[in-house]
Formats: sequence, C-alpha cells, structure tokens
Amino acid sequence: MAKPLNIALIGTGFMGRTHSNAYRKVRNFFNVPYDPVLKVVCARDAAKTKAFADTWGYESTESDWRKVIERKDVDVIDICTPNNLHAEIAIAAAEAGKMILCEKPLSMDGPQGLKMVEAVEKAGVPNMVWYNYRRVPAVTLAKKLIAEGKLGRIFHYRAKFLQDWTINPELPQGGNGLWRLDASVSGSGVTGDLLAHCIDTAIWLNGDMDEVCAMTETFVKERKHTETGQVQKVSIDDASAFLARFDNGSLATFESTRYARGHKALYTFEINGEHASIFWDLHDLHRLQYFDYRDASETRGWKSIHITDGDHPYMSHWWVPGLQIGYEHTFVHQVADFLEAVGKGEKAQPDFREAYRTQLILDAVLKSAADHNWQKVEHVKPA
Amino acid sequence: MAKPLNIALIGTGFMGRTHSNAYRKVRNFFNVPYDPVLKVVCARDAAKTKAFADTWGYESTESDWRKVIERKDVDVIDICTPNNLHAEIAIAAAEAGKMILCEKPLSMDGPQGLKMVEAVEKAGVPNMVWYNYRRVPAVTLAKKLIAEGKLGRIFHYRAKFLQDWTINPELPQGGNGLWRLDASVSGSGVTGDLLAHCIDTAIWLNGDMDEVCAMTETFVKERKHTETGQVQKVSIDDASAFLARFDNGSLATFESTRYARGHKALYTFEINGEHASIFWDLHDLHRLQYFDYRDASETRGWKSIHITDGDHPYMSHWWVPGLQIGYEHTFVHQVADFLEAVGKGEKAQPDFREAYRTQLILDAVLKSAADHNWQKVEHVKPA
Amino acid sequence: MAKPLNIALIGTGFMGRTHSNAYRKVRNFFNVPYDPVLKVVCARDAAKTKAFADTWGYESTESDWRKVIERKDVDVIDICTPNNLHAEIAIAAAEAGKMILCEKPLSMDGPQGLKMVEAVEKAGVPNMVWYNYRRVPAVTLAKKLIAEGKLGRIFHYRAKFLQDWTINPELPQGGNGLWRLDASVSGSGVTGDLLAHCIDTAIWLNGDMDEVCAMTETFVKERKHTETGQVQKVSIDDASAFLARFDNGSLATFESTRYARGHKALYTFEINGEHASIFWDLHDLHRLQYFDYRDASETRGWKSIHITDGDHPYMSHWWVPGLQIGYEHTFVHQVADFLEAVGKGEKAQPDFREAYRTQLILDAVLKSAADHNWQKVEHVKPA
Amino acid sequence: MAKPLNIALIGTGFMGRTHSNAYRKVRNFFNVPYDPVLKVVCARDAAKTKAFADTWGYESTESDWRKVIERKDVDVIDICTPNNLHAEIAIAAAEAGKMILCEKPLSMDGPQGLKMVEAVEKAGVPNMVWYNYRRVPAVTLAKKLIAEGKLGRIFHYRAKFLQDWTINPELPQGGNGLWRLDASVSGSGVTGDLLAHCIDTAIWLNGDMDEVCAMTETFVKERKHTETGQVQKVSIDDASAFLARFDNGSLATFESTRYARGHKALYTFEINGEHASIFWDLHDLHRLQYFDYRDASETRGWKSIHITDGDHPYMSHWWVPGLQIGYEHTFVHQVADFLEAVGKGEKAQPDFREAYRTQLILDAVLKSAADHNWQKVEHVKPA
Repeated sequence: MAKPLNIALIGTGFMGRTHSNAYRKVRNFFNVPYDPVLKVVCARDAAKTKAFADTWGYESTESDWRKVIERKDVDVIDICTPNNLHAEIAIAAAEAGKMILCEKPLSMDGPQGLKMVEAVEKAGVPNMVWYNYRRVPAVTLAKKLIAEGKLGRIFHYRAKFLQDWTINPELPQGGNGLWRLDASVSGSGVTGDLLAHCIDTAIWLNGDMDEVCAMTETFVKERKHTETGQVQKVSIDDASAFLARFDNGSLATFESTRYARGHKALYTFEINGEHASIFWDLHDLHRLQYFDYRDASETRGWKSIHITDGDHPYMSHWWVPGLQIGYEHTFVHQVADFLEAVGKGEKAQPDFREAYRTQLILDAVLKSAADHNWQKVEHVKPA
Repeated sequence: MAKPLNIALIGTGFMGRTHSNAYRKVRNFFNVPYDPVLKVVCARDAAKTKAFADTWGYESTESDWRKVIERKDVDVIDICTPNNLHAEIAIAAAEAGKMILCEKPLSMDGPQGLKMVEAVEKAGVPNMVWYNYRRVPAVTLAKKLIAEGKLGRIFHYRAKFLQDWTINPELPQGGNGLWRLDASVSGSGVTGDLLAHCIDTAIWLNGDMDEVCAMTETFVKERKHTETGQVQKVSIDDASAFLARFDNGSLATFESTRYARGHKALYTFEINGEHASIFWDLHDLHRLQYFDYRDASETRGWKSIHITDGDHPYMSHWWVPGLQIGYEHTFVHQVADFLEAVGKGEKAQPDFREAYRTQLILDAVLKSAADHNWQKVEHVKPA
Repeated sequence: MAKPLNIALIGTGFMGRTHSNAYRKVRNFFNVPYDPVLKVVCARDAAKTKAFADTWGYESTESDWRKVIERKDVDVIDICTPNNLHAEIAIAAAEAGKMILCEKPLSMDGPQGLKMVEAVEKAGVPNMVWYNYRRVPAVTLAKKLIAEGKLGRIFHYRAKFLQDWTINPELPQGGNGLWRLDASVSGSGVTGDLLAHCIDTAIWLNGDMDEVCAMTETFVKERKHTETGQVQKVSIDDASAFLARFDNGSLATFESTRYARGHKALYTFEINGEHASIFWDLHDLHRLQYFDYRDASETRGWKSIHITDGDHPYMSHWWVPGLQIGYEHTFVHQVADFLEAVGKGEKAQPDFREAYRTQLILDAVLKSAADHNWQKVEHVKPA
Repeated sequence: MAKPLNIALIGTGFMGRTHSNAYRKVRNFFNVPYDPVLKVVCARDAAKTKAFADTWGYESTESDWRKVIERKDVDVIDICTPNNLHAEIAIAAAEAGKMILCEKPLSMDGPQGLKMVEAVEKAGVPNMVWYNYRRVPAVTLAKKLIAEGKLGRIFHYRAKFLQDWTINPELPQGGNGLWRLDASVSGSGVTGDLLAHCIDTAIWLNGDMDEVCAMTETFVKERKHTETGQVQKVSIDDASAFLARFDNGSLATFESTRYARGHKALYTFEINGEHASIFWDLHDLHRLQYFDYRDASETRGWKSIHITDGDHPYMSHWWVPGLQIGYEHTFVHQVADFLEAVGKGEKAQPDFREAYRTQLILDAVLKSAADHNWQKVEHVKPA
C-alpha cells in the first residue's frame, strides 16, 4: 500500500499547474510506494491561491512560504516561484528537514547554487530539480541508446531552444509570467530559462563541458515595466548562443532565443556519433529520429521512431501503440521516479548537485558573453 | 459551484481507463457545471475490478451491471463493455432514467442501434457516444474551417485507419482485448472498430453518404480461441475498404486494416475542396496540414499547423504555445462538452441518433462486401 | 564504340522535350552501345517544329509522320502524339521495320492495344512504352526489395495520383496540352492519363489484378472547346477511383483526380507486406520510405532513404551522395536501358505487350464505372 | 541567333562534369545570346582527359593549362582544378584577356584572392565564381522574399553543412578527390570546402559580417597519403563552427563537418526575421519552408513550398508543376545567367570581388580558431 506523502506547493504559475497535475495523476498510471497528498498551496495573492486550491484539490492555502515550511504535516516542499526565491526557500526547507523539489534553473548563479547543494546535503533530505525533459520517453531512449554504446565515439552535439513570443516591443516586462523578462528576478534571459534545459540534457547525455564561448543580445532594449509603469532598460538576454567543447572531445553549438519566428518552443538536439546519430524535437516530442550507419547500406536512412510502444521508456504505463502522450506527462514521470527513489532510499536525478553543474556552465556562458572570450567551465566535485 | 454527478463505469478495459482519467482531470482544466464523482465501477472479475477501483479512486465496485443501474446514487451509466452488451445495458439504463455515455460503435448493427436511439429518446435522458476523435483540437479546427466555407465545394474525402497488430497468425481470438477478433462479440472486425471512427468524422465534416461499394478480407482464416482453446474460423474482417459518394457530390475512399506494417494507429483523413485542402494524421495528432489556394502563389504550400495556441480549439485550457497534448485529452474534452451540454439542457454530439447514422453506413458497407455490389445508404430521420 | 542510332521524334509537346533531353544526355552518363542521333522531328506546325529542332539540335523536320516512317535514315520512331494517333503510327512504323518507342498509355483501349502488340511482334521490332516512373531510382529499389522477398506476403497496395490543375471551370478543353480534356483524343481523362501510371507500376511490383470496382466523376460538366469555340459537354473523367484485388490475394485502392487542391503531381504508392512496408511519393521522388518489422523493436521506425548513394539503382552514374536528381532523369534511364537491351538483343520493359496489360485494366476500370459493378480483369497471354 | 562562345575546361573531376553538363544543356532550356562550344578540355592525365572529352563532346584536349590559355580559339577559361592552382591559372587567363569562370573557393586565402580580383578587374574580363547554390530556385526565391522585405528586420541566421564521408580512419588523404583532405592543396578542410558555400549564401542574403569566433577540430589526426604512401599528419580541419554577428545586428551560428553520421550533403540555412522565417535544406532542394506571422493566426504554420511552379525562379524553363529538378540544374542556371550578363555587358554574380568577401571571412574564421578568440572581419571595398 502506498503511504501518504504530503506536498506543499509554493507558487501557482504555469509550473504550479504542471506539478499539481503530475501529483494527481501519478498513481493512476504508476505503482509507486507513496501517495502524494495535496496538503497546501502557497502564493502571495490569497484569492488566486484559493481558486488554485479549488481547481486542483489542495486541502489548504497559505500566503507566507515560511509558515508552510514550519508545518509539521508537510513532507515535501515544491518550489515553483520565480528564480530569485529558490535559494532562500530551499535552504530554509532543508534546515526544516523537508524533501525538496525545486523548479529549474536551480539558482540565480553558481555560488548561490552551491549554498543550496550544501544545505540539502547537510540536511540529508531527498532533493530534485524539475528538468522535466529528461523524462520525455524519446529523450530517455536517447540516453539508453548512448549508454549502450550504439553511437560510439561522439563527434558533435547541437542543441537549440527557439521561441518567438517576445518579438513585439509592446510586450512589458515585470509581473506574473513576465518576470522572465526581468533579470533581477530571473537571473538572466533565455540563458537561464531555455539554455538551462539544453545544458541539463547535454551533460546527462554527453558528459561535462570543458570550455565555452558565447554571445548574447538584447534586441528590444527598453520595455515598460508592469510594476513601475515606467519604460525601463531591459536587463535580460533575448538571445544567447555558444560554442563548446565537451570533455569527451566532441564539439557543440548551443543556441536559444525568443526571436525566432515560427518556433513556439522548439527545443531540439542532435548528436552525431561514430556509428549512429540521434535527433529529437520538442514540437513532436513523441518521435525520435535515429540513423544507424550499420544498417544495410541500400536501405539505410533516418528512422522516425514513434515512441508509443510498450518497450519504449515509460510507455507501458500509458495507452496502446500509436497513441501519443504530450508535454505534461514528463512531470508525471519525474514524480514517479522521485517517489520510487525515495522508496528505495536512492537519489532521483537530477538532484541539486547535478543541477548545480548546469549553473556553473550558465555562469561560464554569461561571463564569456560579457568578456567576449572563451571561458573554462568549473567542474563540480562529487558530494 | 459544480454540482456532483455520480458516474458508474461498466467495463474496466482500455476505454475504462481513458474515461476514468477524463473524469478525474476535467475539472482541473475546464470550468464545468458538474463535478464527476467516481461512484462505482462494474466488471465481472471482482479482484480486477477492485484493483481498478483502487487505482482510479472509485468509491465502490459491482460485478452485475443490473445492480448498478438500480442504484439510486448513480446519475450516469458509462458503457465500456464489448459491443455485444451495449444495447441491453443502454436500454435498461434509459428505462431507469440514467444519463448514458456509450462506447463506440453504438451497436452490433443498425436495427439494434435504432432500438437504443428509441429508448434514450423515449426516456429523454442525455446520451452520447464516445467518438473521441471529433475532440482532437486539430479535427475540431478542421470542422470549423469547413463550416466557415474555407474549403468551398468539396470534391474528395479520403480516410484510412491502418494498424498492424494482428499479422502474427499465432495471436489468438477471444478474451480480454482480443474480443475484437470475435465477431459474435464485436459485430465485425476493422469495419466496426476502425472504419466506425472514420465514418463518424466523415459525416460530421462532410455530411451523409449516398452509396458505398466495399470489399473485406480475412487474411488469417483460423486462430485459436482463448475461451474454447480450439483453433476456430476467424469471423471478423481483417481489412475493409470502400468507395463512397457523399450527398454533396464528393467522392471518397475509405480503408482500414490491421495488416499494414509500420502503422500502429494511423488514422488519417484528407479533404480536397475547391479552395483549400486539409490533412490530419492521428500519429501526429497535434498538427493539421492545410493548403489554401488563395495564398500568394509564390509562397503557396501546405502549412503544418502546430495546434498548441490559445486560439486553437480547447487549447487555452492546457499549457502554453508549442507544448503538445496527446490522445487521452480527447476524452477530457468530450466529458467537458458533455457536462457543459447537460448544464445547458442541450445535446452533446454525437448522441445516439447521430451515432446511429454511422451504424447504417457500416451495415451498408458490410452488405456491399457480402453481396459484391454497390449499396445505397439508408438515411436517419431527425428525431 | 557506340554505333549511331537515328531517332525520329513525332510530337513536340511536353513529352517531346523530355525524350529529346534524354537522348542528348544519355551518353554523358551511361556507357551505352548506341549513340542516339536526333535525325528528324515531326509535327503539324512547321514553324514550331523548326524552332523545336533548333532548340534540341534535330537535323531536320517533317510535318507528315508518314514521310518520317518512309525515311531510310531513321531507325527509331518515337511517338509523342496525343493518344488517338498512337496506334496508326505504331502499326505503320512496325510494318516499316522501325524500332518503336511509344508514349503512354499505349492505346485508346484494349482492342486497339492488342493490334499494336500484334504488329510489333509480327515485325519483330524492339518496342517500349514510356512508363518512365519505373526508372525513378527509388521505385526501382522498391522493385528490388520486393523481388528479394523483403516484404514477404503482400497484404495491401494503395496508389494515388492527385493533381489540381483543372478545377477552374474557365479552363477550356481542346488544343495543345488541353487535348487531355477531350476524350475523343485522349481516350479518357485521369483514368488513362494518371491511373495508367499507377497501374503500370502496380502490376510491375505486385503482379496481375483479378477484379476491380470503380467510380468516375466529371465535376465540371461543360467547357469551351478551343477548336470549335463552343461550350461543349466535357467527355472525360475528372476523377477516377477503384478497389482491386490482385491475383496474389492483396487488396488495393487506386485513385486519381485533377481536383485535389495542393497536389500538383502527387503520385504515391504504398505497399504493406508481412515483414515490411514501402512508401514512395513523386513530390519527393529521391526518397523512399521503408519500414522493416524485423528491425530491433526499440528503434523500429519508418526510414527515410535518401536515394543518392552509389549503391542505389542508377545513382552511380550521376553525382555524389546527397545530391538529388529529378524528374527528367527517369527518361534518361529508360533510354539507357532501351539501348542496352537493343545491344543485347533483349526486350526493354515495359514493351507493348506489358503495356497492353495496363490497357485491359483501364478497360475494366472504365466499364466498372459505367456499369456500376465489379469487373473481372482480362489477363494478357504471353507472346 | 546565339553566337558561339568557346569554352576551355581545366580539370576533369566532379566539377568538370557538372560544368560540362551545364554547357551542353543550357540552350535546350534557356534562350541565351551565346552558344557554349566545348572547345578543349585540359588535365594532366592524357588518357583520362581523352575519355572525358569523348564522353562530353569536347573538340580537343590539352595536358598543359598554359597552352590552353595561349589558344586564340578559346573565349572562356573554366577553372575546375584543386584550389591551389586557381590563382595562377586565373591571373594568367586574365592577362590573356579571357573570360574566367572559377570554381569555389576563389583562392587559398584572402591575399591571394585579392590578387585574382585585381587581375580580372585590371583586364576587364567577365568573371564569375561557381557558388552554385545561389541558383537553387528555392534559394533564389529566399533572396527575393528577403529583398521584398517579407521578413522584416533579421534577428537570426543559422547555417550548417554536414557530411559523413571521412569518418573511416582508413580513408587516405591525397590524390584525386581526396586532395580535399590535404591542406597544402585545398587551403583548409571543411572551412573552405563547405563553410565557403554557407558564407557565400549568407552574405548574399544577409549582408556583411562584423566579427566571428570559431573552433575547428581534426578528429582523425593521421592518414596514409596516396602520393607518399606514408601515414602523415592530417593538415585539414575536419569540423569547423563559428559564431558571428552581421553588420545588420543579427546573430548567427555556422557549422560544418564531415563527421555527422546520416548527413551526406546536408546544407541547411534558416533565417528568422521580425515577420517571417525561411528554412532550406539541400537534401530536399526543391522545397522551401516559409513561416509568415502575418498569416491568420488560426491556420498559421510553416509552409512547405514545392518549388516547381512556373512563377518560381528559373522553373518556367523546365517541366510542369510538381516535377522536381535536382542538383545539376543549379549549374545550368549559373551558365544561363552568365551568358545573359555577358550579352548585356553586365556582371554575373558572384564575381571574383564578391567571392573575395567570402575569402576574408574564411581567413577570419581560421585565424579565430587558431588564436582562440573573436576576430573582426575585414570588409571588401567596392571596385
């Protein structure tokens, strides 16, 4: 029998919805050792928080996250706030002995991330960061194929995360979802928002990076701020691209932007190995493109694998072959893996230490762009 | 505030899962006037039914569907049994004054379907058939574009539903999911299972059919039956194709099979109109292909529309642009529309009468294949 | 050393150009035993014929095809006239002992085709019909894969040839390229023009057909005729679709139309076998889609084969891997194969007898549509 | 009437074939003012040169390019030699007053390229470099759409040229086609071979670059040399990637490699503008992908434009809509444009000065990779 595990959600934005959905669904599809109980949801606006609780079935609400952490009936703190609050909440939660699930990116920068890592490791609490794309079944299959050596030596890695939602210069910066345009709250622009995803996947699939060289750009220099009502300088990067060399000798290009017309959330990666290549695309996340040079030459080609079969990662839990799942399922998978890991006393990846690796690369990228030169990437030491 | 609406689910197979998921999710995403309460689930195997109830949160279980219908605390009977039980349950439920949701196809044949239509209309109970593909956002958009006249006069309609899961002659017929290979339980093979979907969509998008000419084939003639343990003649059609003329003068080809290697659930349709054409494919259900001849000639082409924007049907209820939903969401949409319609005292489509139209076409298709000639399609009279 | 082979081209339309190009190019890419010499081109309009001769380098012109056949310095008669002239010219050419290359379809109908077969076989002259799509490298590879048994038992064949160029009712019927809209000249509409291609490929890949059931439609009933200047009844079929059963037990659907918006020349076929499936599309003719169920299940999928490698049919003669050829090359391949066959004293396929098989199927299709019933297909006896 | 223009081809490799084919075909499809006469072909191996002349119809052969330049009966020198011979031949040809067509890249480096520019400009002879991809109809259409302002302000440019033919370490460097692996002959590896194409297209479509930062890699460090028989250090770059900023403020990533499994000649570019985006791919060169944000939102999407209509660039000269052309046609277009320009006394682009711009960017890329830093790009002054 699954034991109850009491969840406190802090933040009621987009991610608050995806996590709530995951908690509610996980036991319908996965036989996990814990039953997530939606104990409390916390956000500043009381009326909105109440409405959110009604929609998702949270038992209670709070408006001060400190009170949530003090509650004895809470096992897990799930942090879905803007980035500038992650560290303070996480460290307090760790000190209170709570398990912690934190939205990505882990922190505003590397040094802050390190404090968070130290806090959870000192407290010995289970912790995980919501880099959900590792749990797209196609991406998980890519990891498996690489781990099995199907690709052989890796020569190239290329990743992009392209959006187009901030091209309009009339779009303001500031409140609600638009905190992503205010670097004092978000830490950076597309670098921390989008490239963080690309980097997390990349280090998982291809190992550490040795050095990077980046450029960033802010195409719209000033926007009205929703809180001050003033036209203010835009502090984030609208676009960010970098070259990288991995420790394994492979070369990489990374790029993200919110100025690529026609792409709403086009996260793609391609990996070229000695024997085989892999391509994946978030816009058709239920497919994996795979080319294997060892296939018979006459009929060799890129295979479009429809990742809906029972022997594909996670898919035996869902429907029948041919019927695709979508974006939200990645969070269900992540909750399932977390609960499974907690049940076994294991770590669910990416934990804070793993996510801290991404912060160090983000720091190197931003410093490279600022200093207009190549930067070595600091490597994370094992715990 | 949403009023509770007590659901009784009869059947715990694949469709039992999709419906249960829909009931559980609908209020997290849609502001509907009723709150579906999972009151009771009913199936013959008591242990399995109990496990299903635990997984999905049903309050109680039954093993005799007649007892379910007698219960005063049940508002809605949801029929997910094999096809041969639909009529008896639905008629009894209608007589008991219950709302009825019935899996497709409505009935074993047209005459049986007519009795079901008469029963629900006499009882005056809300009723609907689970032709879920109407609620794929891309398909709903296709309906809207046609209704707006974007395509102009329709010349051609072509639909296919291709699978490949019964090619292995060692696969038995009979129990569990394999009742679909036993015509005494299913009514027919791919005709009623797959073409029924194609036909429901077609009459919704393109109106009634005038005449059809069909051929069917059973490629594997004998299979072991799971209940008798004997090798028995296979009674279903493995493949079924037909030509059709619609009342609007357009020509059509329809085809379904379970012997098309490489296609797990490839339901596609294409409509060619005077001005524009539409193509849709279940394997990438979040896309709609659209060609408009009135576009500037130099850059005219098929558009691949990623159906994830807020102004696409149903999509404002889900995530953000670029993030796709999947198969299961079609059932959530159907429940949302049903609850909305009940709240307004309107009919949710397709109701039994609408689904009966599909039965008459299926009858004509099967008779055409048997008699080796063209068959006129009987038209359903308005209620 | 290649021996000169004197070519006489009759007809200067679209096909006159494709053939002339093929004769001019073949020896630059293929080491064939004959050197096609562009001896004479013949058409009714002297000025146009002269201009054509200048463009393509023909040594002389004629306006009466009978004179061409009488010429001693002509080895090959290449018939590119409208369909209603094929038989008379071919029979006269055969009697004069000329080799004959005839555009498709072979004849206006089966009986006329039989006379042509008898004439060339009696004369013992090399003969071939320009069903050029057999020589698309991807299609040739499909033939090879089937012949090797890669697909196993065939269950399904489906072909379409969709165009959209006659939707405008203001388009006249009659002269020049528009003779295709006048059945007294063309024999039929899309049936003979487009389905003929689909049928030729099908019988080559999948063998004879046993029976067919067809429907045809003329969407625009009247058009102005360019020769009479009058609005006249349209005599051709605008659309034609049929069901078929092949001798090998497989089921088929065929369809062609000139009323499918968005498709300029979309000839596609798909074949589903026990082990593997193949799909091809004229709009991307340099690709073949191939699915093999015997691939490892985890990475099984449709392969998009870019048919540009040296070990793909014909491709070692062209450029380097990755660089595609186009439509016109199919004619070069056909000329190369013809010259090679003549050199060896073999038959180049499809010869008149092979093309006559297609005529018999076309006859059955048209009779089925007219009689509104299934029709058996008459089989061609070996020579 | 077209005037004869006597062509001397120097070099009989892959490019010798594409050029010869272009000269032979151009007048069959384009009404140009000159008639290219295949006067002489020159290469070191007399037997091979003779065979080449026979295949393509050259009137004579030479083995010393200096003699070719001395010939009075030659109007045009077409240079298809390895890169290290371009400058010497071109300068001599200019001094002899010949028109010059030179294969790309123009030169071994920028300074050498400048000498070539000065030579042809001093001599006042028509000159052009074979950057053939400008004449892919889809690419020409992209240029037109950009020039018309359809994209608005450009934010991003990204280009890749990926191949996989040198992964095998047993492949030698040196003779014949393998001179591309010997930097003393080729100047560089993929930078000059592949990125040169990407850069030529980019500066044509998007203007000058301001600065670049590059990395290069040689994955296979030693290979047997075909001329010495010794295993020698590999002197070329196997892979090369760079970041760039254009003068117009747009950001770019460029990458090329011969180590990308699954890609034979995957040259792609994408341009993201304020209003619209464009994508093109050499593997399907007859298509252009186009997204226009100003389309109606509900049906907005990427259009796949099949570039085969009469109103697409160059296409009215070929076949009928739907029928694709291929790689070789780009050379025919380039010859047609060159002859047209000569007839009008205009410059055909890219001329030597334009191609010199690409050399300066290549120099900056190679220096950036060597120095591990950003490099400003020297701008070419107008003639």
